[in-house]
Amino acid sequence: MRLLRIHTPDGPRDAVLTEDNKVVTLPGAAEVFDLDRWRDRAAAATDPAVEFETVTLAAPLNPGKIVCVGLNYADHAAEGGQAAPAEPILFMKAPDTVVSARDDVVIPRGSEKTDWEVELGVVIGRTAAYLTDEAEAMEHVAGYVLANDVSERHFQLERGGQWDKGKNSATFCPLGPWILTADEVPDPQAIKLGLDVNGEALQDSSTAEMIFGVAHLVHYISQFMTLYPGDVISTGTPAGVGAGQKPPRFLREGDVLRVWADGLGEQHNRLVAAP
Amino acid sequence: MRLLRIHTPDGPRDAVLTEDNKVVTLPGAAEVFDLDRWRDRAAAATDPAVEFETVTLAAPLNPGKIVCVGLNYADHAAEGGQAAPAEPILFMKAPDTVVSARDDVVIPRGSEKTDWEVELGVVIGRTAAYLTDEAEAMEHVAGYVLANDVSERHFQLERGGQWDKGKNSATFCPLGPWILTADEVPDPQAIKLGLDVNGEALQDSSTAEMIFGVAHLVHYISQFMTLYPGDVISTGTPAGVGAGQKPPRFLREGDVLRVWADGLGEQHNRLVAAP
Repeated sequence: MRLLRIHTPDGPRDAVLTEDNKVVTLPGAAEVFDLDRWRDRAAAATDPAVEFETVTLAAPLNPGKIVCVGLNYADHAAEGGQAAPAEPILFMKAPDTVVSARDDVVIPRGSEKTDWEVELGVVIGRTAAYLTDEAEAMEHVAGYVLANDVSERHFQLERGGQWDKGKNSATFCPLGPWILTADEVPDPQAIKLGLDVNGEALQDSSTAEMIFGVAHLVHYISQFMTLYPGDVISTGTPAGVGAGQKPPRFLREGDVLRVWADGLGEQHNRLVAAP
Repeated sequence: MRLLRIHTPDGPRDAVLTEDNKVVTLPGAAEVFDLDRWRDRAAAATDPAVEFETVTLAAPLNPGKIVCVGLNYADHAAEGGQAAPAEPILFMKAPDTVVSARDDVVIPRGSEKTDWEVELGVVIGRTAAYLTDEAEAMEHVAGYVLANDVSERHFQLERGGQWDKGKNSATFCPLGPWILTADEVPDPQAIKLGLDVNGEALQDSSTAEMIFGVAHLVHYISQFMTLYPGDVISTGTPAGVGAGQKPPRFLREGDVLRVWADGLGEQHNRLVAAP
C-alpha cells in the first residue's frame, strides 16, 4: 500500500495511492502516523479517486525524529576522502526541516555549498528499544519513503565540530511522495535509487551497496535510543553528491532536482534563494 | 511568570506557579507552546491554587526541537582536554528524550558512562530566521528553563563519529520544573546553576562563565536553521561533569541528582536501570 498526504481546502488529508495511480482521500484530518489505523481507514474509504498529478502533495508524515546515518555507502565515503565506518555514524535532522516531494528547497543565506543526498528512508511502525536481533528489527519497520538529506557542506564540515549544523536548514528534508508499506518490499537491500540535477544523472546506485543494511541499522539504533512509530531513519547516500564531483559542484537558485527510488516515486524540487 | 505543566486525572494541564509557590491550573488541556496564549489564560484563570509540593509535574513544554551547544564553558572544555571553540558547536537531542524534573533517568543497557550536565535552557517564543543582531535575538526569547543534558560518554565519544549517539537515550533530557518568562530575567548571563550527586556538589557555576551568551547563541543559530516557538536551546554545561572528575565517575542505579539554577527551580531525579 502506498500512503500519502495531500493538501485540500479542508486542510491536510491522509490518502492512499491505488494501483492505477489514483489518490483516494481518507475520512478525517491527517493524523499522527499510525499504520494500523491508516490501513483500517483505507479499507473503509469511499471517497472518489482523483488523478495523482492533480493533487497538492504534503509530506507523507511528520516524523517524531529523523535519525540519519552517515557514510553508509563505501563509494560515498571514498569520494569524501573518508574511511568506511566500523559501525554506523548517527546524526539528526529536526522534523521541522521536512517538506514534500514537490516543495521548493531553500538555499540558506550565505550558502555556497548546498548539496544533495538521495536516501532510502525507513519509517518505524512500532516502538523499538533494545531489539534482540535483525529479524525482530524488521518487524518494527512500517515502510519506506524516499528522502533527500540536503546538506550545506560548509556549515556541516567547516564551522566547528558536529554535522547537525549543516543538516537542519529549513526545507532540508524532502520526504515522499509516499510511504510504501513494508509488506510490498520483499528486499529493502535491492532498491535502485538516484538523483538528477537539471536532467543530468549524478547519483545512480542501489541499496545493495549499503554498508549497514536496514535490519542492522534498526537493531543498532535501538540500542542507543528508543524508536517510536513515525520516526524515520535516513540510511545514507551513495556516491555522486556535489562535494564529490570533480570539481565540486553545488546547488544554485533555479536548479531542479529529480530524486527517485524504485517503488518509492519521484521528488521534483526546485532550488530557490532564502527570502 | 512561572509556567508549568502538571499531570491530572483529566490529562496534562498547563498551569502557573504563583509568587507564594502555589499552582493554578489553566482551563483546557496542555497545548503546543504559545506564550501569549498562556499569558491570556493565566490572566483569566479562576481555578483554586494548590501546593506545589502536591502536584505531579510534567515537563513544562514538549519542544519542537532541542538544539544543544557543546563546550560552551571554558572550564568544561578544559576538563575534557578540549580547546575552547572558536564558534558554537551544535548538536541535537530529540524531543522524545524529555522528561519532567521529578521523573527517573534511565541508565541505558550496557552503559558504563552515563553522565550529567546542568544547563540553562532557552525557550524560543517567536519564529527566528536570519536575525540581524543580538538585540533582535533577545526579542525572540520567551523564557528560560532548567535542563540536564544527560550524556553517555562511551556512546557519544567512542562509538564512531557524531555526539548525537550519546545524547538521545530515553529520559536523557529532564526539563523544568518550570519556564521562567524572560521579562523576569534581567540578565541571563548572571544565573547561578549547579548539580549535586547524592548530596555532593559537583557542578557549581554561573552563566556568567559561558563563552557564547544567550543573545549570541540565538542570533548565531538562526543563521543555520529556523527556530520556532517552543524550541529549546540548551546552552552548554560548566565544569564538574562525571567524565571530568579525577578519577572519572559516572551514574549508577540508585543515585539521586539535584539540579538547580537560581529562579528556575530544582530537579530531583533518581537513576534507574533500563528495564
